[in-house]
Amino acid sequence: MAKELKDLTKRSEDYSKWYNELVVKADLAEQSAVRGCMVIKPYGYAIWEKMQQTLDRMFKETGVQNAYFPLLIPKSYLCREAEHVEGFAKECAVVTHYRLKNDPEGNGVIVDPSARLEEELIVRPTSETIIWGTYKNWIHSYRDLPLLINQWANVMRWEMRTRMFLRTAEFLWQEGHCAHATAEESEKRTEQMLEVYAEFAEKYMAMPVIKGVKTANERFAGAINTYTIEAMMQDGKALQSGTSHNLGQNFAKAFDVTFMNKENKPEYVWANSWGVSTRLMGALIMTHSDDNGLVLPPHLAPIQVVIVPIYKNNEQLAEISKAVEPVVAELKRLGVSVKYDDADNRRPGFKFADYELKGVPVRLAIGARDLENGTVELMRRDTLEKETVPFEGIAGRVADELESIQKNLFDRALKLREEHTYRVDSYDEFKEKIEKGGFFLAHWDGTSETEEKIKEDTKATIRCIPLDGEEEEGVCMVTGKPSKRRVVIARAY
Amino acid sequence: MAKELKDLTKRSEDYSKWYNELVVKADLAEQSAVRGCMVIKPYGYAIWEKMQQTLDRMFKETGVQNAYFPLLIPKSYLCREAEHVEGFAKECAVVTHYRLKNDPEGNGVIVDPSARLEEELIVRPTSETIIWGTYKNWIHSYRDLPLLINQWANVMRWEMRTRMFLRTAEFLWQEGHCAHATAEESEKRTEQMLEVYAEFAEKYMAMPVIKGVKTANERFAGAINTYTIEAMMQDGKALQSGTSHNLGQNFAKAFDVTFMNKENKPEYVWANSWGVSTRLMGALIMTHSDDNGLVLPPHLAPIQVVIVPIYKNNEQLAEISKAVEPVVAELKRLGVSVKYDDADNRRPGFKFADYELKGVPVRLAIGARDLENGTVELMRRDTLEKETVPFEGIAGRVADELESIQKNLFDRALKLREEHTYRVDSYDEFKEKIEKGGFFLAHWDGTSETEEKIKEDTKATIRCIPLDGEEEEGVCMVTGKPSKRRVVIARAY
Repeated sequence: MAKELKDLTKRSEDYSKWYNELVVKADLAEQSAVRGCMVIKPYGYAIWEKMQQTLDRMFKETGVQNAYFPLLIPKSYLCREAEHVEGFAKECAVVTHYRLKNDPEGNGVIVDPSARLEEELIVRPTSETIIWGTYKNWIHSYRDLPLLINQWANVMRWEMRTRMFLRTAEFLWQEGHCAHATAEESEKRTEQMLEVYAEFAEKYMAMPVIKGVKTANERFAGAINTYTIEAMMQDGKALQSGTSHNLGQNFAKAFDVTFMNKENKPEYVWANSWGVSTRLMGALIMTHSDDNGLVLPPHLAPIQVVIVPIYKNNEQLAEISKAVEPVVAELKRLGVSVKYDDADNRRPGFKFADYELKGVPVRLAIGARDLENGTVELMRRDTLEKETVPFEGIAGRVADELESIQKNLFDRALKLREEHTYRVDSYDEFKEKIEKGGFFLAHWDGTSETEEKIKEDTKATIRCIPLDGEEEEGVCMVTGKPSKRRVVIARAY
Repeated sequence: MAKELKDLTKRSEDYSKWYNELVVKADLAEQSAVRGCMVIKPYGYAIWEKMQQTLDRMFKETGVQNAYFPLLIPKSYLCREAEHVEGFAKECAVVTHYRLKNDPEGNGVIVDPSARLEEELIVRPTSETIIWGTYKNWIHSYRDLPLLINQWANVMRWEMRTRMFLRTAEFLWQEGHCAHATAEESEKRTEQMLEVYAEFAEKYMAMPVIKGVKTANERFAGAINTYTIEAMMQDGKALQSGTSHNLGQNFAKAFDVTFMNKENKPEYVWANSWGVSTRLMGALIMTHSDDNGLVLPPHLAPIQVVIVPIYKNNEQLAEISKAVEPVVAELKRLGVSVKYDDADNRRPGFKFADYELKGVPVRLAIGARDLENGTVELMRRDTLEKETVPFEGIAGRVADELESIQKNLFDRALKLREEHTYRVDSYDEFKEKIEKGGFFLAHWDGTSETEEKIKEDTKATIRCIPLDGEEEEGVCMVTGKPSKRRVVIARAY
């Protein structure tokens, strides 16, 4: 373990390599035998479970219910919404047969050609089509609305270049699909769910985000408007962390979903959809971690505090264990997730390095001399600072430190973002500075042509038109045409 | 809703039709547009979530951790274990392509023939192969063992005849996959997880089960031993509700997974796997429900008690609501999930019928006269008995009734099973009685031939060799050959 830690590439040397190594070394995930698909290991999955539980509770507090829709989607469904099929047909796994048979030549099994499906089925890349095909039978009257449904599911997009958590062929996510009687109500829900995502990112992930609207180019295929939260990673690149789409009546029209309104007239239903995925794991890692390994915000850490005994013999261990027992009980009572690691097959130094690599927020070390002195050594993972503190009242102290770490991580990430956010008015200045990363607040003339030119010239994209951006008269930094507000431009994951 | 209830087929008329109708009418699930795949609706999913949460907690209490493995499995993996491929290759969804393209003739999209996979991928029917392919890299030494891992996932088996929850092409389940250093330890874990399933079935589902061993014919493909819990449905048929498989070293050998033992010698790892699925929803429905609809055990009911106000005008409603408010608060404090249904677009009679159909365990109805008298009407869903009880202390009374209902449902199901369990020694008697359903305790000579004859003659199968069966000298009811213990025979879902 100590060796593994020493081998971790430094962020300053190669940020991308550092990330890839850390995902594996911290036991979060690994590549599987299936191209582009990962295995999420128990430690990584435990973090994802905490994210899931928190988000699930937040969704339900807004009235959302969970349900489950089929994995496979008939090919014809995908074609119903014209823009949607363009966005998704290019990169999907296609089921064409439903049986294998023994190879008559004796080489294992082969696809049974007689078991060809009449219509091919697509492994869902997202579920708007199958869900709106279903809603047709659920919605008849305004009394059936709103319908506020979410599903936790796996989806598949046949990406060419994959990176663990950030872009994988299969990933885990939630997708909310709401149906409303009015455009206003649907728009309100679209914005409400973006707020939920932003709150989750900031309060639980300790990751500051910019809320904004995507440009037409970057919209979800089939949406009339896409909202996004964008976070800055430590290398100055943006990571789109959650999106909420106002789908207007596009899917209702494609699947002929109408309802009788209060005036007893048929009307198409208004839709929105919203999702976050295991990509958030990548965002979490890249926002906080350092050259020693993972740094986890306490609100999402599977183990919040680890206690390591330092002993020379079994007698000392027994004494330490006896002293620690009530502390463990008190921590649990305070709702703190604690591990007392008295395993005797690893030395304290190895344990320290391992828990640092795994990002455990607080480490307590206690030896025979500490017992005598009534002290304990406390280390914070965020600052790596050690302090000798009184043993008395240590549980309360740990709880306080956890809150302090949660806050510090957010503040630190916000400071980094602010230090790397630039207002630019000259395209030359932008092109020079973008090489070093960061978010750029610039005027843009609102055209796709200019957006594409920026992308071609610099590989940077318009991340969003920020919701809290002020109106400001200006001219597009590329074309000099008039602009009313600045947009956020950055290179992105 | 009242109409829907009236339309529900009676169990005595057509048990199978009753089940199919109930699943739909109680808003649990419905057929999707994809052959054999269902949509699990919010109310059905809420019950499944309660099952999941309970099981997940029980697994974790035994040291199991969750992880996630890929949905798709390379075809060649399936062939590694000889029996396994025989069991699963016949009924799986095969992904052959990874892209669609626009039809040059303009008819939507077609499979892009240039995007054919080199090796076909199978939508997992179960994950032993991909998981043991992964474990090869995780297990090196006895110190890496045991590995106790579970995943919650969707799986797919291309069944020819499907029924909602009981047998669907896609279903949701959990699959545990443990790796051990010794045969004894693996056997112990196999049995331990069967105990967890039995405890869950009896304590939470209020469904008595018989624990037993499957005959060789009925074993999981690739197992050396399969344990099962078998429950009796109200029509006297058996439903296999959970299985735990001792896989010996079969998968370790197929995927070459060895470890260095304490003597520093390489050895194949010992394996077991165990699973329950959304099939449990079918078991739950068929064990307790009646001609009025669903009957849910309180421990798994999404709504445990509903309170319906009976009022003539808004003034009365306001008074009732004011009186009910502290009751709702007190119920929540007691951990009871409560709904106060003051919606004014449905009449009390409709609400009553709806909550009966949905199986809500306790219903309270309160009107203006009740308020005056300090009473409330309490109805139990299990007995349909109404009682006028004091309003004072109603929250505690409800909590008591919930426990009483939970117990009554179990007792009732156990009584039904006992009344329909028969010891038979004559094959003629068996053949006659099996027509009316039930469990039959009979001597069997232990051969596959006899087992298959029984199945051919009567459509009944040996459900299991019960673990708590006593040794008893006897002769096979079919062949007259000697037998040492009785087995459980029944027709099954």
